[in-house]
Amino acid sequence: MRILGIDPGTINMGYGVVEAGNDLRAIDFGTVSVASQNVIERRLCDLYDGLTKIITMSSPDEVAIEHQFLGKNARTAFAIGAAKTVAILASVKQGLPIFYYTPTQVKRHVTSYGHSDKLQVQKMVKVQLCLNDVPESYDASDALAVAICHIGCSRFERWVSERN
Amino acid sequence: MRILGIDPGTINMGYGVVEAGNDLRAIDFGTVSVASQNVIERRLCDLYDGLTKIITMSSPDEVAIEHQFLGKNARTAFAIGAAKTVAILASVKQGLPIFYYTPTQVKRHVTSYGHSDKLQVQKMVKVQLCLNDVPESYDASDALAVAICHIGCSRFERWVSERN
Repeated sequence: MRILGIDPGTINMGYGVVEAGNDLRAIDFGTVSVASQNVIERRLCDLYDGLTKIITMSSPDEVAIEHQFLGKNARTAFAIGAAKTVAILASVKQGLPIFYYTPTQVKRHVTSYGHSDKLQVQKMVKVQLCLNDVPESYDASDALAVAICHIGCSRFERWVSERN
Repeated sequence: MRILGIDPGTINMGYGVVEAGNDLRAIDFGTVSVASQNVIERRLCDLYDGLTKIITMSSPDEVAIEHQFLGKNARTAFAIGAAKTVAILASVKQGLPIFYYTPTQVKRHVTSYGHSDKLQVQKMVKVQLCLNDVPESYDASDALAVAICHIGCSRFERWVSERN
């Protein structure tokens, strides 16, 4: 099974494709970035097109999106709503099922501690995927982490359902 | 010139197509509605597809979107971000330029008073477009109102630029 993890953002959209076999293997990861000075229409459209290209090229079976806490700031919540919508539309338009995980769930799964910092997540992603180096950006490592989290949670659910 | 006005929402997306000749003429208006109990992926995708269909059928030259105040509530701001992103992506994917107006600008233009209520907007839209009845929903009349507002503002800007 191949999972596309997405860390949504309106400037940088992190992505990470992980293949789950006997081991976990990173197929592709990085960041779809757009110029912050561009108008919002251009940015959203470029992020949508970039993500669609990633999906077409990597052919994932499922998508896992980090669902951030909205916070108290309306401007942040607006940006999260916009970024998440881009990620959802790009995935649904390719017929992919989507699963959501909070940052705490992802951190707890990848580092065994729900309040780890981004550097700890980055290091654990490197170890679990046997990468030569840590991913270049936090957006990419967060996206790989949400994919790893989804693979673990799916396996656990399958394990439980097989015993009931 | 034909304008598509959009009043964005994650359950009801109001739309109104207005043709600007010697008079203003309503070509089509209504609401793209989705079931609130559906999961967010289904809703966003249905709204996107519904709006794309409206654009394809009505062939507007430009799009005018009501840009709401984000408010202090993070949940509302998130929904506004999601709805606006759907409206933007559906329009940009058809190569249409987008213009934004605040509710106050729209109300001031259509009713001459920036704090009119929705019923007053509905009545003035009926008068200005010579409709037999007021539009069925506030979402549709708000969408027609933002289209009327854009037509008026564009004419004024053209008038000013021709004199300078």
